Amino acid sequence: MTVKDKTTVYQHGTLAMLVAGLFEGTMPLSELLSHGDNGIGTADSLDGELVIVDGKAYQVKESGAVVEVAPDTKIPFASVHYNDTDAPTTRIENINDRKLQEKLIKDNDMFNVFYGIRITGTFSHMHTRVVPRQEKPYPKLTVATRVQPEFEQDNVHGTIVGYFMPYLFLGAAVGGIHWHFINDNRDFGGHILDFQLEKGDVSVQVLENLNQHLPVNNKAFRQAQINLQQVGDDINEAEH
Amino acid sequence: MTVKDKTTVYQHGTLAMLVAGLFEGTMPLSELLSHGDNGIGTADSLDGELVIVDGKAYQVKESGAVVEVAPDTKIPFASVHYNDTDAPTTRIENINDRKLQEKLIKDNDMFNVFYGIRITGTFSHMHTRVVPRQEKPYPKLTVATRVQPEFEQDNVHGTIVGYFMPYLFLGAAVGGIHWHFINDNRDFGGHILDFQLEKGDVSVQVLENLNQHLPVNNKAFRQAQINLQQVGDDINEAEH
Ligand SMILES: [Zn+2]
Ligand SMILES: [Zn+2]
Repeated sequence: MTVKDKTTVYQHGTLAMLVAGLFEGTMPLSELLSHGDNGIGTADSLDGELVIVDGKAYQVKESGAVVEVAPDTKIPFASVHYNDTDAPTTRIENINDRKLQEKLIKDNDMFNVFYGIRITGTFSHMHTRVVPRQEKPYPKLTVATRVQPEFEQDNVHGTIVGYFMPYLFLGAAVGGIHWHFINDNRDFGGHILDFQLEKGDVSVQVLENLNQHLPVNNKAFRQAQINLQQVGDDINEAEH
Repeated sequence: MTVKDKTTVYQHGTLAMLVAGLFEGTMPLSELLSHGDNGIGTADSLDGELVIVDGKAYQVKESGAVVEVAPDTKIPFASVHYNDTDAPTTRIENINDRKLQEKLIKDNDMFNVFYGIRITGTFSHMHTRVVPRQEKPYPKLTVATRVQPEFEQDNVHGTIVGYFMPYLFLGAAVGGIHWHFINDNRDFGGHILDFQLEKGDVSVQVLENLNQHLPVNNKAFRQAQINLQQVGDDINEAEH
């Protein structure tokens, strides 16, 4: 039996890899899920937005369709952790995404450590976007993300899974709060652009470890000469 | 019995913390050593240079004296891994530190993944430096490292322990190769400035995981507003 370490966010791959166009999946989902039961990421060839909730991985495709991800699907970049089901939750009402981010950062001193964030509730509005699947030879992330389908629903009940990562780790991870949504029907979700939360239960989990795993057996990754000065600029363009 | 994971470098604290003057030790050495038997770092109040070899931790003090570190000594920043004693070694002769760094980087594609480096041999020259212990209120790292005692020996036999960390993790870690030395007599060592290797056995260990642990219970760390733009400049000044 695996011990569920509730103090660690496990990340496979780096955001900088994606920025450089290294979109090839390098870890099967089944292996990723041996490190956590909640998380977010993307799939091989940047094929949509991953949302992992209670051990099940959903992929929101560029069509807007949601599919459950097969265990052997290769993942280039994802973060997972074991959700602490005993963590206290806070009921929060009538707040938009910007104000909620500010509140979470302020209430929890979200500066220098890692946090898992999970929100279950009713959203009077939810607005998402989904990265489109890319073909080889892969472009850079800024090109791949220039046109992204967006989706919106009103009065939708579902779950947000996300992280706060310190800006010190920007480049390895997304700095600040990065969260994905999946509705209860598992037919709508994606990377969150904005929302209006009507009523939700928010839990914040302090994660004292980042287990950063790298695809050491991927030759393209091992040998890539990534321009780190460019990475920062490109992240700003692609992720915001 | 603990399983010795030979694929992970475990790091407690971040370089950026030190840059900001957070020199307080936050993990007992005994706990650090439960994550690896080789490594480098510093001690509470920036009290000298740590070199961990085969499970024993040595502290090179600003006087040049070397002491074995007590298990309850608090560590603010250190990296450790389990040395793979089965890893192949390469005999290398008559090379200086610059040329050896270039060779290691070129031969091993040291760009994007983590590497443990260990060299045992005879050095016709070894030149080290030791950070001086600081008093509270702690200054910034650039101030603390402005004057550092240096030490030199010729024809010394000993061990280098160090890491290559991808520049993507600069700020969390030291980017590039960072190594410390301890002689066989355990009475000379420190942070390496330069050397001439006469003859040595070099082993390089690919580490596919960085387990970055943060001192989440240290209030000063949790609440510090670290200026990350300044961190890069200050690292260049303090570490080179
Ligand atoms: Zn996203
Ligand atoms: Zn050093």
